[in-house]
Amino acid sequence: MPLDPVLQYPMPTILVTNDDGISSPGIKILSKALKPIGDVYVVAPEAEQSAVAHALTLHRPLKTEKAGRNTFSVNGTPTDCVIISVDKILPRKPDIIVSGINNGANLGDDITYSGTVAAAMEGTLLGVPSIAVSLVRNGDDDSYRKRLSLLKAAAEFTIKLAKKVLEKGLPPDTLLNVNVPNVLRPRGVKFTKQGKPDYYNAVREISDPRGKKYYWICGGAPQWRPDEDYDLEAIQKGYISITPVHLDLTNYEALKRIKKEWKL
Amino acid sequence: MPLDPVLQYPMPTILVTNDDGISSPGIKILSKALKPIGDVYVVAPEAEQSAVAHALTLHRPLKTEKAGRNTFSVNGTPTDCVIISVDKILPRKPDIIVSGINNGANLGDDITYSGTVAAAMEGTLLGVPSIAVSLVRNGDDDSYRKRLSLLKAAAEFTIKLAKKVLEKGLPPDTLLNVNVPNVLRPRGVKFTKQGKPDYYNAVREISDPRGKKYYWICGGAPQWRPDEDYDLEAIQKGYISITPVHLDLTNYEALKRIKKEWKL
Repeated sequence: MPLDPVLQYPMPTILVTNDDGISSPGIKILSKALKPIGDVYVVAPEAEQSAVAHALTLHRPLKTEKAGRNTFSVNGTPTDCVIISVDKILPRKPDIIVSGINNGANLGDDITYSGTVAAAMEGTLLGVPSIAVSLVRNGDDDSYRKRLSLLKAAAEFTIKLAKKVLEKGLPPDTLLNVNVPNVLRPRGVKFTKQGKPDYYNAVREISDPRGKKYYWICGGAPQWRPDEDYDLEAIQKGYISITPVHLDLTNYEALKRIKKEWKL
Repeated sequence: MPLDPVLQYPMPTILVTNDDGISSPGIKILSKALKPIGDVYVVAPEAEQSAVAHALTLHRPLKTEKAGRNTFSVNGTPTDCVIISVDKILPRKPDIIVSGINNGANLGDDITYSGTVAAAMEGTLLGVPSIAVSLVRNGDDDSYRKRLSLLKAAAEFTIKLAKKVLEKGLPPDTLLNVNVPNVLRPRGVKFTKQGKPDYYNAVREISDPRGKKYYWICGGAPQWRPDEDYDLEAIQKGYISITPVHLDLTNYEALKRIKKEWKL
């Protein structure tokens, strides 16, 4: 196990993954930033896997390719990457899994579609403290150069948070979903709840060159009734948002009521 | 809007979908069973989509094909099917969405991988009361004939439950995840919580014909510490399990504590 070069204690093992793919700037900047604090492994999808949610590949075998020192691509989903990493690639169980930095927000109900958040879900199911980090996009308006600066600032914050998680641990079955606003100097950090936007997935009708009708699902700008505890609202106001996400989805209140009132 | 042939009141609009694909026996038996109680539309993936979770297709347009009266296939995920149905295919907003009957259990943490449950999630996000129904498998031991009888019995129960949901509605942001044991006469119905199995996704190493190493993710039999409120345990004991699943994933207890204790 590699030792800290100065203090000579064993460095924590860190698995970095994402859903934008192994060659995205977000994962490169993040893994580089984490190297001084840990023994970093990067295992990520070979191609973009946005909106794949917690999908798992069961119907075919998966191939890994070495893409650098402690760096591997997988022809699968973010969830696949985490499972294979922990079971086969890493020399020991990681102390923390960091998924990101995603190119775009993962806020409100959208977290259920997110491959970035799903990787942290899988880590959590495997008993590894896990965080998902996303950098909000400003349309395509930001220059590549500005985007890199924003990613670097988000990576700096992620180091701070990862250290805290390594020190404190996380509650059972709970991951942290982190979103960073696309400003160079966020106003601070807010611990938030998952926002509830009014639904906004729209479907556009298009035709192929032969006139056949197709449907294309497009997002939109989420709208919501004001609630200052929402992740959506923290981001809108320029704060970093951290939401503790629970993997026990039982609605206990509803369970109690239905148990009493429903006869079947 | 079609009227009930006897009572002459408008029949509820029912959307049926699944993740096993449009030609699976489970969806055929379910949709046929529901016809006497509603105006039934079937919109399902053209091919099997197991373990796709809440994945959404954003990177390409989707094609629908008419496959019968009020029946359509979509070359996408269960989530895609629900979004397109509600926005484009159905003549009005459905009164209930029923996803299933899935060929195999969706219990414990596995619900986060499930395409069947994801379709009900999407319905819930769209404000439509939604239920996901799965029939537990007994390995591949059951004959095709026995399987059809089990599916028919599960469909009968689903009618009863759908009527109850149409009458009572569901709590906000909450779907029902229903699992039916693979016995012809279940011992009864239990309202349950999401079980917490010890983790059991294993990875098998295999070689291709040229000797290159591949990994294949395989499930296994889940194990858990006994808890009679678990969905896993209800099924094991021969009961139908109904879990209210909440789409607000915030861990409020953790949020309160972290907010107080963590300085960042």
